[in-house]
Amino acid sequence: MVYQQELRFSTTGRGTYNIDKQVHQAIAKSGISTGLCHIFIEHTSASLILCENADPDVRRDLETFMVKLVPDGDPMFVHSAEGDDDMPAHIRTILTQNAITLPVNNGKAALGVWQGVYLWEHRVQSYKRRVVITITGE
Amino acid sequence: MVYQQELRFSTTGRGTYNIDKQVHQAIAKSGISTGLCHIFIEHTSASLILCENADPDVRRDLETFMVKLVPDGDPMFVHSAEGDDDMPAHIRTILTQNAITLPVNNGKAALGVWQGVYLWEHRVQSYKRRVVITITGE
Amino acid sequence: MVYQQELRFSTTGRGTYNIDKQVHQAIAKSGISTGLCHIFIEHTSASLILCENADPDVRRDLETFMVKLVPDGDPMFVHSAEGDDDMPAHIRTILTQNAITLPVNNGKAALGVWQGVYLWEHRVQSYKRRVVITITGE
Repeated sequence: MVYQQELRFSTTGRGTYNIDKQVHQAIAKSGISTGLCHIFIEHTSASLILCENADPDVRRDLETFMVKLVPDGDPMFVHSAEGDDDMPAHIRTILTQNAITLPVNNGKAALGVWQGVYLWEHRVQSYKRRVVITITGE
Repeated sequence: MVYQQELRFSTTGRGTYNIDKQVHQAIAKSGISTGLCHIFIEHTSASLILCENADPDVRRDLETFMVKLVPDGDPMFVHSAEGDDDMPAHIRTILTQNAITLPVNNGKAALGVWQGVYLWEHRVQSYKRRVVITITGE
Repeated sequence: MVYQQELRFSTTGRGTYNIDKQVHQAIAKSGISTGLCHIFIEHTSASLILCENADPDVRRDLETFMVKLVPDGDPMFVHSAEGDDDMPAHIRTILTQNAITLPVNNGKAALGVWQGVYLWEHRVQSYKRRVVITITGE
């Protein structure tokens, strides 16, 4: 069996957005009990991560780290047509994930207790982001 | 067809642990000849990597690199309740992989000659780690 | 249904090589309409990325960034038998992806408008690279 669904998210600037609820709903709708849930983002300046979901400081520290690792407006970047955050957004996406695949067990995502699925917007402005969820199994 | 199995690993501090044997055994048990083998770790402070499997210096250099990239106890990190390696473990996990998906061909993982599957423990103490293997195909 | 195919690529030094055409052809051959397309590289010194596909400067800046992040010939690396780019190639592979999984929708890869699939050769010399494409679905 295969179930597929497209989701739209409106981001409001750089940061992480929890999408657990949407993932759980898609798995429930699929009727699939055992298999895989593939979550894919159709962009090159926003990504997906599995991150600790209890202490917001974790995601704040992650942002602090990433801003230092890939500085906005770094003069080494030639591609800056859309602003200082343009090229860093592409690099941040490549250093993280375009897709997350989760095991599905007993009709649910087999996530660890502390794992949450987050869409990470890397651009500083608001964007519409498309995510495709595909669930395969039995 | 779908086959799913949970594995437990006891790590003994920061470092890489080869899990090829367990992956091969799961594929053999599944009876699946052609398809995909998805290996997923249910944690946010340990990750999975495919790494060169011949020279242990590669994994030693990888550790050297990562310690320098994400320094333990860096004062920029606010989230440090569990120690100096707490936040770095989360970041190291996000910069690597929560899951590895391998092609299955002729009932075996289609790994390259030099590719090994490693669980990378990012915490300095010992932990119990859960891994879910899901194999889909025919 | 499962469809699987091996592809060979000849790289001519460090850089990114677009493989969209080969991916699209494999999906067309598979006859699968809805499902997943898994693209896997059987090496530890070349990787796969989804990258912006319009402005070549993006991939040039990405290379500039990576060379600075993981310097060739860095004296901290012990594993250097094959040259200054040996250990950096392993690290660059681990920081990016061994595999890309795309949703398949209406018999096509559901890629975003600006997303291209690239093989990233991290060694400075020419290599033969093997890629396995596995498509599952209905």
